[in-house]
Amino acid sequence: MTKKKGRQTVCFENPPVILNTYSIGGVKESEGPLKADFDKILDDDKWGEDSWEKAETKLQKEAVQGAMSGAGVQPENVDYIFAGDLQNQCVGTHYAMRGMDIPFFGIYGACSTMSESMSLGAMMIDGGFADKVLCVTSSHFCAAEKQFRFPLEYGGQRTPTSQWTVTGAGAALLGSDGKGPRITAVTTGKITDYGITDINNMGAAMAPAAAETLMAHFDDLNIAPDFYDLILTGDLGVVGSDILCDLMNKNGYNIYPKHNDCGKMIYDIKAQDVHAGGSGCGCMGSVFCGHIMKKLKNKELKNILVMATGALMNPSILLQDESIPGIAHAVAITAEKIGE
Amino acid sequence: MTKKKGRQTVCFENPPVILNTYSIGGVKESEGPLKADFDKILDDDKWGEDSWEKAETKLQKEAVQGAMSGAGVQPENVDYIFAGDLQNQCVGTHYAMRGMDIPFFGIYGACSTMSESMSLGAMMIDGGFADKVLCVTSSHFCAAEKQFRFPLEYGGQRTPTSQWTVTGAGAALLGSDGKGPRITAVTTGKITDYGITDINNMGAAMAPAAAETLMAHFDDLNIAPDFYDLILTGDLGVVGSDILCDLMNKNGYNIYPKHNDCGKMIYDIKAQDVHAGGSGCGCMGSVFCGHIMKKLKNKELKNILVMATGALMNPSILLQDESIPGIAHAVAITAEKIGE
Repeated sequence: MTKKKGRQTVCFENPPVILNTYSIGGVKESEGPLKADFDKILDDDKWGEDSWEKAETKLQKEAVQGAMSGAGVQPENVDYIFAGDLQNQCVGTHYAMRGMDIPFFGIYGACSTMSESMSLGAMMIDGGFADKVLCVTSSHFCAAEKQFRFPLEYGGQRTPTSQWTVTGAGAALLGSDGKGPRITAVTTGKITDYGITDINNMGAAMAPAAAETLMAHFDDLNIAPDFYDLILTGDLGVVGSDILCDLMNKNGYNIYPKHNDCGKMIYDIKAQDVHAGGSGCGCMGSVFCGHIMKKLKNKELKNILVMATGALMNPSILLQDESIPGIAHAVAITAEKIGE
Repeated sequence: MTKKKGRQTVCFENPPVILNTYSIGGVKESEGPLKADFDKILDDDKWGEDSWEKAETKLQKEAVQGAMSGAGVQPENVDYIFAGDLQNQCVGTHYAMRGMDIPFFGIYGACSTMSESMSLGAMMIDGGFADKVLCVTSSHFCAAEKQFRFPLEYGGQRTPTSQWTVTGAGAALLGSDGKGPRITAVTTGKITDYGITDINNMGAAMAPAAAETLMAHFDDLNIAPDFYDLILTGDLGVVGSDILCDLMNKNGYNIYPKHNDCGKMIYDIKAQDVHAGGSGCGCMGSVFCGHIMKKLKNKELKNILVMATGALMNPSILLQDESIPGIAHAVAITAEKIGE
């Protein structure tokens, strides 16, 4: 007997609270429509560091410190950090966390990291192992381009389906008790691969995983898309979002009126020339921890499903004729009071 | 109020059972002293695949299938997989798990992955979220050398402190109930950095993290090294093991008679010319899931502490004048009956 409902979903007995979040946006992000919703904005993408990689480390450090200090919480009161990023061996995260003096679990879910970390963090709390957990992620456009595609100096052309990796970070402090929106359920994804091989079309590679997790969520809880005010994906962008909505529609779920995607929201897609929209762990990290949390706090949003999606390849395995597997983890959040 | 004891340790109310394990060793590993303890041995390190990376994927696939089939468990009865490896973006793991149809959490703890996965797996079960969890990891010498150091064709000289990445994998199936050794407690590490910068001396980089987690474990539970028959680290090798034992001694803990290290056990260090011993996620993965589990089952070992250690850098961040942070997670296991 477990707390599971169906194959992939867990419902919490004592839904963990999102006590505080902190969101940081880079230069390009601060020129987009959500500029007012970041807690901090960079005026230079190196942010005083001597490399992009180290700037990403600083993003996570500052996000963690912001999330803690805004809640009046000291590091010694945080039981665990769950964090990861896109850099090889997640070094953005590790160098940020080495001074933290907080027990650390490293995770890798590519761009699904924000909802993977919140899933595990919420389970730690509801399972009785923690009172407070930090869930953290980031990405950096320049570090990611260099590592996954081409050096920026090369000036490569971007294809129409390509997305722009967000420079940004988000940290969410979860607690067993207190004021704030609550995580009521999580649905954990399976690795899904529909055979997409185009490294410049991450949205198409991740959309099938999003559809499968979303259908599992609805099935496991016996609910329909109408249950939510908003079904928010992480970084499917314009192309992947359309594929997700169409796939869901073919399976009998109309999510068109409920769906939005952080990768579509964070930029003014045409004016900022980002082709298919934003991507990267920091996309949902910064949008959820900034813009979305504000709307949950002021009750503009009441019941939402937050589902970050990750593409689980690396460049060398794609050169070995492999396709791109994806994963998506869903986190159900309510701003309503529970049990009243 | 949580199930935590002290700052970093959790004691389980219903200690999860290690129902079954499966261990695979590569060619060099099968020529060492533990050859009889692997469940499967490779006669070629590509194992019929067309790349080392794909061979590593096969290692994890076969380890998972072996762990399940030996326990008579079907994939649909496994609630979660926790797994990771050393390849960039953990692709060894992802391509292995994409066909599994089991909810998946990707983790990255470098060579600490085996005990990170068992820690989280045990918490999922004791927390009431899962009945069965698979904990999996692997490494591959050729894939790791190419990625972290030099192409093998270069024929680079190895320094005396360098270690040999194990080609191997381990999978452990944990359950809420049944026969087998039980996980009684886990101590989660913090990221620790004593300033080591030599990429050919991983043991020295990881030993301080091992010492800090071990001291936290003893402090949190108010026990001494004598409590255990064996304190087993993952891949400190000869150099790192000496540093760990000396560091512990300086802090008042005599672990010399109780300590051993999978990286020292898996090879005949001199005869096999592996310099400071074995390393890699697959080192503890294959040694714990093979050799050690056999000794727990036949009660040669009764109370052990298993602590894999990870070095959390990547090559490009080391070129940016960074030192190497480490982490270690400890898992306490008893072969004795509980509550009788």
